[in-house]
Amino acid sequence: MYSYQYLFSFTQQVFEAIGIDKDEAGQAADILMRAELRNISTHGLVRLPEYVRLWKNKRITTSPDYRIVHETPSTALVDGGKGLGLVTAPKAMKLAIEKAKTAGTGWVAVRNSYHFGIAGYYAMKALEHDMIGITMTNANPLVAPTFSMHGMLGTNPIAVAIPAGEEPPFVADFATSPVSRGKVDVFESQGKSVPEGLLQDIQGRPTTDSSILRKGGALRTLGGDVAHGGHKGFCMTSIVDIFSAVLPGANFGPTVVPTLSYVKDKTGAKDNGIGHFFGAMRIDAFQTAAEFKAGMDQWIRIFRKAEPVKGQERVIIPGDPERESEKEKMEKGIRISRKSFDGLVGVANDLGVDFDPSGFVE
Amino acid sequence: MYSYQYLFSFTQQVFEAIGIDKDEAGQAADILMRAELRNISTHGLVRLPEYVRLWKNKRITTSPDYRIVHETPSTALVDGGKGLGLVTAPKAMKLAIEKAKTAGTGWVAVRNSYHFGIAGYYAMKALEHDMIGITMTNANPLVAPTFSMHGMLGTNPIAVAIPAGEEPPFVADFATSPVSRGKVDVFESQGKSVPEGLLQDIQGRPTTDSSILRKGGALRTLGGDVAHGGHKGFCMTSIVDIFSAVLPGANFGPTVVPTLSYVKDKTGAKDNGIGHFFGAMRIDAFQTAAEFKAGMDQWIRIFRKAEPVKGQERVIIPGDPERESEKEKMEKGIRISRKSFDGLVGVANDLGVDFDPSGFVE
Repeated sequence: MYSYQYLFSFTQQVFEAIGIDKDEAGQAADILMRAELRNISTHGLVRLPEYVRLWKNKRITTSPDYRIVHETPSTALVDGGKGLGLVTAPKAMKLAIEKAKTAGTGWVAVRNSYHFGIAGYYAMKALEHDMIGITMTNANPLVAPTFSMHGMLGTNPIAVAIPAGEEPPFVADFATSPVSRGKVDVFESQGKSVPEGLLQDIQGRPTTDSSILRKGGALRTLGGDVAHGGHKGFCMTSIVDIFSAVLPGANFGPTVVPTLSYVKDKTGAKDNGIGHFFGAMRIDAFQTAAEFKAGMDQWIRIFRKAEPVKGQERVIIPGDPERESEKEKMEKGIRISRKSFDGLVGVANDLGVDFDPSGFVE
Repeated sequence: MYSYQYLFSFTQQVFEAIGIDKDEAGQAADILMRAELRNISTHGLVRLPEYVRLWKNKRITTSPDYRIVHETPSTALVDGGKGLGLVTAPKAMKLAIEKAKTAGTGWVAVRNSYHFGIAGYYAMKALEHDMIGITMTNANPLVAPTFSMHGMLGTNPIAVAIPAGEEPPFVADFATSPVSRGKVDVFESQGKSVPEGLLQDIQGRPTTDSSILRKGGALRTLGGDVAHGGHKGFCMTSIVDIFSAVLPGANFGPTVVPTLSYVKDKTGAKDNGIGHFFGAMRIDAFQTAAEFKAGMDQWIRIFRKAEPVKGQERVIIPGDPERESEKEKMEKGIRISRKSFDGLVGVANDLGVDFDPSGFVE
């Protein structure tokens, strides 16, 4: 087991070793560590080698020219200058929050960025300002639109964080596909097949093969077939793609230049990176914060005490399991997977950063 | 078959007969007619008797005190004063668009309102201003959260309308549940069962009985079980509930006082109506409109020409089928269902408005 502090410090040093300044490296490390703490380790330290590889391949730069290209009282367009999302996104979310302070809401679209970790991290930044936070991003094209033979959209997550009063906040943070790419990776690394209805092969036929994404297969949309609302999943994933990428002028849909080695770049498109979309809404731009928070407390309590179906313990409020995990891992330490461990050892050797292997527990 | 003009004029007269002024009655009639034209007849004329009943029961008033309760440069809270959604919502969407003109974006939350027809109608209002339009609303509690025994959330639709250049706009308009309540009604009126995985009975057990909503059953969330992402559907439907209802102070979740006679009011809650949430974003608050529209044209063309799976003709761009239907029905006329027809005849007799039955075709 490793402590938060140990892994945070190691990760910060890795980011510093590739040329990111100390404060921003700390910020980036904290984002990955929050994913570990919140039990979304698919978006945590396991990604570190991917980031280092992107830097080595000159796909990202660690001294980006971050620019506000255009703005209005409640909006801004940001060019991330090919910086890592973990560096660009915190600044963009901060800008959305600043806009909201004066205009009531703030909305920032970002281009020329790359993977930014868990979407929920940024949405949650709004909470301390009594604001609702919203985050979206597009990603590598792995999701097949309804009736499409091939993957054309990212798993395109949405996160929404909503403050409450006495209750902890409502924090939803989810890929708009039925499972994330990281979850499929986990099935694959465990040698397991994936439940039916989630994947299709290169011919568009249903499959449960967890290695299918490497073989030209694709994820299906949330809902599955049209009878079960799969076209609505396609709509959601498309909306995230358009808000995150078409709006700022990043690469969208299948024109995203893949950062995954097994996704072929068939586009020949100019690389304007992926894009993100950040929102912050001051709750007292609508009701008073006190009234709203009392309402949210009531909402959360009504759903938490809902009668569960047989065999289930409770209705889960979005954000509860992650917060419980965060508390536990902060106290008891963090167990990392074999894949993460191997990645960290590799990065440490590669960049000459000390890493203590003795904390690893199989 | 009936012409748009005939049914529009009849519907306007019905709204006038219950005391709505001529212009607003025309606006309300147009909203219902757009649903008919766009082949979303579950949200069209079939609802007219429901609106009249709400007025007779004094659940709504036709001379509401519409009030802007609070505002900032980019936001407003509106109290609909218990007016029909079809009257309140157009004003609120207009306000969002006005806000966006100066602040870049506009966001309006509404309480004390009722059913407003198709969400897409309002979102599409933004298009003529080169804005992205967004609409959400909550509704009668019929959707069971993941693991919940009972329906606690509405079918809570989202609509997003996004302008393009040479291509027609992207218009997504969908209940966040896998099917809408209206679709279940259609299965029931045809004596058909509903596909597996969409419904649960009063004990939370899976069922295909299309009359189950009248028997205390519930719709499941988009995605279905947790393995297929049903908890993400729960998140989406919850977010719409919170934005539409908790934010403005309307009744939310299971505290919505039902407007459906077969949903029991178990709440005893104060009736602040249902709520809506409207957004308008000027596209040139991010990129220039010309750049963005060129990007959207490219997006739409890439997805429209995507290779379809075997047995399917094409990947469908959200909004295409509805626009094609609108054009066809405007030219060839509108066929209404037996249920709609009976409702219109009843309303006509009740309120003393002329209605010509000869246009009905079984």
